[in-house]
Amino acid sequence: MTAHPRLSLNQATIKYAGLAEALRVTSAAGIAAIGLWREPVAEVGLARAVELVTDSGLRVSSLCRGGFFSMPEGPSRRAAIDDNRHAIDETAALGAPALVLVAGGLPKDSKDLAGARERVRDAIGELADHAGSAGISLAIEALHPMYVSDRAVVSTLGQALDIATQFDPSRVGVVVDTFHVFWDPGLLASIARAGDHIASYQVCDWATPLAADVLLSRHQPGDGIIDFAPLTSAVLAAGYRGDIEVEIFNQKVWDAPVDETAARTVEAFESVIAPLLG
Amino acid sequence: MTAHPRLSLNQATIKYAGLAEALRVTSAAGIAAIGLWREPVAEVGLARAVELVTDSGLRVSSLCRGGFFSMPEGPSRRAAIDDNRHAIDETAALGAPALVLVAGGLPKDSKDLAGARERVRDAIGELADHAGSAGISLAIEALHPMYVSDRAVVSTLGQALDIATQFDPSRVGVVVDTFHVFWDPGLLASIARAGDHIASYQVCDWATPLAADVLLSRHQPGDGIIDFAPLTSAVLAAGYRGDIEVEIFNQKVWDAPVDETAARTVEAFESVIAPLLG
Repeated sequence: MTAHPRLSLNQATIKYAGLAEALRVTSAAGIAAIGLWREPVAEVGLARAVELVTDSGLRVSSLCRGGFFSMPEGPSRRAAIDDNRHAIDETAALGAPALVLVAGGLPKDSKDLAGARERVRDAIGELADHAGSAGISLAIEALHPMYVSDRAVVSTLGQALDIATQFDPSRVGVVVDTFHVFWDPGLLASIARAGDHIASYQVCDWATPLAADVLLSRHQPGDGIIDFAPLTSAVLAAGYRGDIEVEIFNQKVWDAPVDETAARTVEAFESVIAPLLG
Repeated sequence: MTAHPRLSLNQATIKYAGLAEALRVTSAAGIAAIGLWREPVAEVGLARAVELVTDSGLRVSSLCRGGFFSMPEGPSRRAAIDDNRHAIDETAALGAPALVLVAGGLPKDSKDLAGARERVRDAIGELADHAGSAGISLAIEALHPMYVSDRAVVSTLGQALDIATQFDPSRVGVVVDTFHVFWDPGLLASIARAGDHIASYQVCDWATPLAADVLLSRHQPGDGIIDFAPLTSAVLAAGYRGDIEVEIFNQKVWDAPVDETAARTVEAFESVIAPLLG
């Protein structure tokens, strides 16, 4: 079995696999690329992680994730910025082109959404040079507005672009994640506007009822109601030529054997996304 | 106890009260206006409902709800349009200025969000004259994007305005419901653009974690993270002078005695919203 060459399996889809296992599963499924997460990398240590990745022969499409820097100035903001510098270095060491940024929600006891959004922009401004030196791109991910207060104050692709376009696309870009943005009446216009600033394209599907923990409501492409054709065409027309990640948070998907999940991902991508890639 | 003169208790906040009981509870709490729902009106019949409302001396701030007309042409669409004509007549009979419209989600087995949105616009176009003749306004409610697929394909105030501004504000307007729109980075600009098209202002709060049934995640003003000051200022600056409804879907609120809920609503409005009304 060989998967479509642009498919990348985001490691979160096989959440319970450690790094070595995730690399093995991905290769065994015939997938050429993987999106990594920092925690499993940290478990084995960065140096060993780099060795494992090199030995696997897989491309690393992105590292998840930096961000969580919406808090006001002070020690915890400094710690967050420092942690993001480490994440940038890890991204470069692993050979990934982009570090995915999840902005963070409202600080505890704050109702100042506009202020939090300003501080996210400022944090990215502080980090952009470091990303440039490391040769990687900070990829701002707009999360669905249902996560605005507790996870990400960046809620639309347009808002992510308002930040990203203040910087060269080699340093700051955006993630287009279908689950998070498909609902947006202005989406196609935003994707067109994004152009070279698209640093990552992630496909997964939306279905209702949402899971009781709304974080776990993501589905394989084809298992929900998203029409991937116009979105994917727009992303291609904008010039995006990178890997396309499948990233699923879903307890049922996680409870399945990891090799089965990888095979199912290959199938879903082949039937729903690959025909759109020309 | 007398509540702020612009407070209106939406009947959904005391869901288990019938019409007569809801009117009694509202008056007893010193509230001068009520937002009604069609089902409790239908339970007693329209003529009797009009008598009860007249006898109560309360203003009716809106009738909930019309809409649910996102399906393609055919008998069920015709039935939905007809039902909306009845809802318009009921709104006028009850002396309410506005019929709240919830667009409806994607039709079964459809992934065509753009098409559903077109059909919502077309349905409103069909109904606008009837609303004009009846002397009421169709109030398009943008629902939070987490409801886009199963409840309302109108997801932002800007999108609602793209429809409403095709019509005279006496016929078609929008609802500004804080819970549904607070997250929107473009919200203040949209409220300013809305101007005379604001047909209803509803205040309720957002808190996480969301309820397992995400429909029931609405809270009393002050019990969540919304900063009502900038939103309310913008609504006032846009020229809105009507009633301000508190509409809560929340199992705990519903399980409380209805008089207690009404009193709690008066308190919440007094402490959080009234100071913003000048």
